[in-house]
Amino acid sequence: MGDKSANADAPMFKRLALIGVGLIGSSISHAARRGGLVGEIVGCSSSVETCKRAEELGLATKMYTDPAQAVDDADLVILCTPVGAYAGVAKAIGPHLEQGAIVSDVGSVKAAVIRDIAPHIPHGVHFIAGHPVAGTEQSGPDAGFAELFDGRWCILTPEDGADKDALAKLQTFWKRLGSEVEIMSPEHHDMVLAITSHVPHLIAYNIVNTAAHLERVTDKEVIKFSAGGFRDFTRIAASDPVMWRDVFLNNRDAVLEMLGRFSEDLVTLQRAIRFGDGATLEKMFTDARAVRRGIIQASQDTPQPDFGRRVGSSAKTPSR
Amino acid sequence: MGDKSANADAPMFKRLALIGVGLIGSSISHAARRGGLVGEIVGCSSSVETCKRAEELGLATKMYTDPAQAVDDADLVILCTPVGAYAGVAKAIGPHLEQGAIVSDVGSVKAAVIRDIAPHIPHGVHFIAGHPVAGTEQSGPDAGFAELFDGRWCILTPEDGADKDALAKLQTFWKRLGSEVEIMSPEHHDMVLAITSHVPHLIAYNIVNTAAHLERVTDKEVIKFSAGGFRDFTRIAASDPVMWRDVFLNNRDAVLEMLGRFSEDLVTLQRAIRFGDGATLEKMFTDARAVRRGIIQASQDTPQPDFGRRVGSSAKTPSR
Repeated sequence: MGDKSANADAPMFKRLALIGVGLIGSSISHAARRGGLVGEIVGCSSSVETCKRAEELGLATKMYTDPAQAVDDADLVILCTPVGAYAGVAKAIGPHLEQGAIVSDVGSVKAAVIRDIAPHIPHGVHFIAGHPVAGTEQSGPDAGFAELFDGRWCILTPEDGADKDALAKLQTFWKRLGSEVEIMSPEHHDMVLAITSHVPHLIAYNIVNTAAHLERVTDKEVIKFSAGGFRDFTRIAASDPVMWRDVFLNNRDAVLEMLGRFSEDLVTLQRAIRFGDGATLEKMFTDARAVRRGIIQASQDTPQPDFGRRVGSSAKTPSR
Repeated sequence: MGDKSANADAPMFKRLALIGVGLIGSSISHAARRGGLVGEIVGCSSSVETCKRAEELGLATKMYTDPAQAVDDADLVILCTPVGAYAGVAKAIGPHLEQGAIVSDVGSVKAAVIRDIAPHIPHGVHFIAGHPVAGTEQSGPDAGFAELFDGRWCILTPEDGADKDALAKLQTFWKRLGSEVEIMSPEHHDMVLAITSHVPHLIAYNIVNTAAHLERVTDKEVIKFSAGGFRDFTRIAASDPVMWRDVFLNNRDAVLEMLGRFSEDLVTLQRAIRFGDGATLEKMFTDARAVRRGIIQASQDTPQPDFGRRVGSSAKTPSR
């Protein structure tokens, strides 16, 4: 297979099946339609209500509750459910996949995903795991928007011996969705994401819960005075609980390793505070600024001062 | 004393002296001029360069490098330097304060600040410590803007026996700068801010440093894939290192207490990950969402999905 079309504007796939139409699935639908990348989009959700909403939003021409039906005649299938559901979905769709089709996913962990999906993929179907590193704290079919992937990185983690044409085609698809594409091993992916995404989310969830269970500070006070920094943690901690539960259950070793490093470093800072070691504190705080500069230079964030965001401002609503 | 003016639009103070013109000092200047709250603003910085810049920006009609000179004839003096400098400033200005003047500050800790300033305030001058819970990750005289305090909370922590008229007048001043005002004890303030601001900043600084010192993940990868959550921590960790060093040195006990709670809770989550306890993870993640809803309902943040912010977007630049 491979993208043999002479016309770069022609659809790359005749039918895309999105298994799951939450934030990421619905954003793929928006971006694929924006780019004219697919002839037709069908979708799948176990919730009848979500199916109805997805059709109302025009995310798919037809929604199914049964993934086996949804993949019928699809030449691109993307799993967009929480990763804990992947094994069941893969088992269900395996016998119904079209020869030559590409199967991919968007999960935030990759080694466990390959372990769960690969055994169910028949010969002649090309499975290439993927992860668009993009998102917002919102979830559900209404949360998606076409620009979500623009300028962000999508990581593909093909197994050894993956079909080169299928890989190239999936890579082109993600580029035309707006992403940059990087290829790496699933194990390295899981290590990189443990520190850049999983542990940050875990400690954000954690401090929100710590704050909510104090005896000497009320919940009302925590909320009222949240503009001092806490607010930004609650934003991260508003992300989908089931999705994140599955991430932690499926990237255990890398998360525990990074968490160990984090705690070790935190004890160092704690000790500096206890003994009044201002020089150590100032040095660690100054070093952290340099990383921030790197992120802005790499266009992965904007330099505008966000802490001072206006109450009720609608300036940040992305176009849909 | 007290605000005896019959005209609500008349200046409340004839001369405001800002000791320090960084993010908060410069924002007070912008907001006080927006509201017509003061007849004249003078400022002070130990840096000649900052003095020059503050005059260029119109933050003060006259800048001084000597705080003793800056407070001459001022009926409102606000200390806006890092809190570690307060004792020296208070000692320098004490003998030069005008009878009946109000002295306040904007420091993020309050018990230590009162300990450092109060002994130097002469009889007949009214010292009332304060803390506007607002900010951005940027610093310096160029960082300020008039809207920074709008809808945010300013906490005042008067000592027992503080002059009631002076307190009322300072309260009105902050309301006219755009803030809501809350009165509490310095000790309670330090506890509330330890969890809502100090510990969040500390763990943000910490994870940025942890990420920067990994062997198996490169700095370049950390930056490239930061949109998965890490990015938002670097934003917090870009705040002024000296200001934050002084906060931790001056709110040691409350920070260590909250940090102990945070670590205890984190160990619980870590254990749930190690033993695959998905129910505990999902419950803690779900609980955290409720706190987020409370913050949005209290107008201390906007519901717009910020993680998906566009590359190069300028939509978030506050007006100045």
